[in-house]
Amino acid sequence: MADLIVDLGDRSYEIFIDSNILGQAGDLVKQVTSAEKVLLVSNPLVYSIYGYMCISALQNCGFEVSLALMPDGEKYKNIDEAMKIVDQAVKSGIERSSLCIALGGGVVGDLAGFAASIYQRGIDFIQIPTTLLAQVDSSVGGKVAINHHSGKNLLGSFHQPRLVIIDTDTLRTLNNREFTSGLGEVVKYGIVYDHEFFSYLEAHAEELIELEEISLQKTIYRSCQIKSEIVAQDEKEEGLRAILNLGHTFGHAVEKLGDYKLFRHGEAVAMGITAACYLSHRIGLMTTEEMKRVEKLFMKLQLKSQFPSFAPEDVISAMQADKKIKNRKINFVLPRGIGDYVITDDITHKQIENAILAVQK
Amino acid sequence: MADLIVDLGDRSYEIFIDSNILGQAGDLVKQVTSAEKVLLVSNPLVYSIYGYMCISALQNCGFEVSLALMPDGEKYKNIDEAMKIVDQAVKSGIERSSLCIALGGGVVGDLAGFAASIYQRGIDFIQIPTTLLAQVDSSVGGKVAINHHSGKNLLGSFHQPRLVIIDTDTLRTLNNREFTSGLGEVVKYGIVYDHEFFSYLEAHAEELIELEEISLQKTIYRSCQIKSEIVAQDEKEEGLRAILNLGHTFGHAVEKLGDYKLFRHGEAVAMGITAACYLSHRIGLMTTEEMKRVEKLFMKLQLKSQFPSFAPEDVISAMQADKKIKNRKINFVLPRGIGDYVITDDITHKQIENAILAVQK
Repeated sequence: MADLIVDLGDRSYEIFIDSNILGQAGDLVKQVTSAEKVLLVSNPLVYSIYGYMCISALQNCGFEVSLALMPDGEKYKNIDEAMKIVDQAVKSGIERSSLCIALGGGVVGDLAGFAASIYQRGIDFIQIPTTLLAQVDSSVGGKVAINHHSGKNLLGSFHQPRLVIIDTDTLRTLNNREFTSGLGEVVKYGIVYDHEFFSYLEAHAEELIELEEISLQKTIYRSCQIKSEIVAQDEKEEGLRAILNLGHTFGHAVEKLGDYKLFRHGEAVAMGITAACYLSHRIGLMTTEEMKRVEKLFMKLQLKSQFPSFAPEDVISAMQADKKIKNRKINFVLPRGIGDYVITDDITHKQIENAILAVQK
Repeated sequence: MADLIVDLGDRSYEIFIDSNILGQAGDLVKQVTSAEKVLLVSNPLVYSIYGYMCISALQNCGFEVSLALMPDGEKYKNIDEAMKIVDQAVKSGIERSSLCIALGGGVVGDLAGFAASIYQRGIDFIQIPTTLLAQVDSSVGGKVAINHHSGKNLLGSFHQPRLVIIDTDTLRTLNNREFTSGLGEVVKYGIVYDHEFFSYLEAHAEELIELEEISLQKTIYRSCQIKSEIVAQDEKEEGLRAILNLGHTFGHAVEKLGDYKLFRHGEAVAMGITAACYLSHRIGLMTTEEMKRVEKLFMKLQLKSQFPSFAPEDVISAMQADKKIKNRKINFVLPRGIGDYVITDDITHKQIENAILAVQK
């Protein structure tokens, strides 16, 4: 079992990565908490596959487990569902010293984490992510949130988990599209932070999409490691952590214009990365060859990265509604070659428009 | 102008206490933020008296101010009102770098602070408390919360303000009952932490209820100082901070049984303190004389502290629903004489019942 530490002083925690470790969840959880009661948050689909194993593992270690199920889908990541989890927590007698566990993808993790962050001003929280996206990105780093009709993740907290348990077996029950979309965030780490990792992904793309265990674990491990390093340096996103938004400014706009139904988050991020690479290229930060490498990697990973044909002005207006906007200027994380970045708000609307038009072709 | 520092490392902040300083709010705020936009949260009553002065002071210093008003009253400290503030923030273009200011009593501060703590994962927040209770207690220390139908302050965050501005003039427009109820928390500080301050209150009770400026400022200053010292040592209430709950275990039950209408928070706390003193007395931690001193001080401060005639079993059951309950045992902060405390969960239901019956007489 590989394990990583997210180094955040007295809020540090471990990430365990292995196949077939869900059955050990009880022992792993026991090591980090003195809670007696656990509120397990999941959705019906994930719960039908992994619920029994997870609850048994917890009960075998003496935990008293209650369950809160939320419907599956990004549109349920809202305040109403968060309040239902709270109601269930109250009904189950969840106390300040109790624990909340999220078993599921990013939506479950975000919603459960948000509820845990405000319940009695914050109770302990553990992530058991079951999608690739959640394993390599959203379960690590403590950002939890819900959507508001005016914007994605508009309401949220920084609430670090006490532990992250990644069982790679859960990826084998994901549908193909769900799995590959998670690779969007993986590629992001290579582009923005680690040229060598990018090359590794190029070399192991076929193995990855065939879920070859060693490549899979190495990829998840390195992704979590990169994210951990960045979060350890800038937990509250006051600087460095912003680089993890590569592709997200365009990506969030794409998701929004697709009404959060047309595209998965990782797909939108891949599309956003493509647009960001083009912007970088145009201002001389990325060569044509580097841009092509990114494009080719997305292709090898079977990740559709072509920008959808929304009107550029609609994309720009959706970007301006994003919560990362500071004093109305759009901040971009742009690749500087592969493995490095710049952050700039010195991009004109005309340049953005041109980039969108170029990557729509 | 007296000022105090709440020492919380990089989250430290100042508390300014003086008469007639609301007009300087713009300058004071300017010193701690680079925000351009401000969302001012208040209620219609407070706003009608102090809104113009506050907004002018902010606008004169270049801030772009939008307003979110909530109805007056504890029952509006709920998720629906919090979401209305969020909607107003979105509508006003409040960004991550913007600021939220609470102008009002504890309810306004709690609700605005909670909204600020989750809006875009937390934006800067400033407290301008206008009731004695908020000035000496709720505005200092970063606890913000809303109520849930199952319990008071069940949902919340630790979100420290960047600044607290206490204009003692605002106390002159409070009705008598609102003012004296704030003295409940003031007396608490003396009993649990500072014998000398308790004696000061005994000596200056008449001046206080006549709003004599020097006694008022000294009392607010020392109260904020004690709270700051405690919070600086235990921000997240993992230990010492719990002593601030003296009288609150009984008090919350009283508030709940009074449907949050019959009693003001400070009144319920005074009643709770009376019950806690009796419990202390019964287990040998407080002499009859000390108990009488507390009773007499409440009387001099015109604070009704007699425990209301609820059935003891109802009080106990309301206490058990309180969120501070750990593994179903009720934790009590009890005075050890005047100026010291013990924390114990070793109190039987019979003892609680007897204490309630005794203080109902």
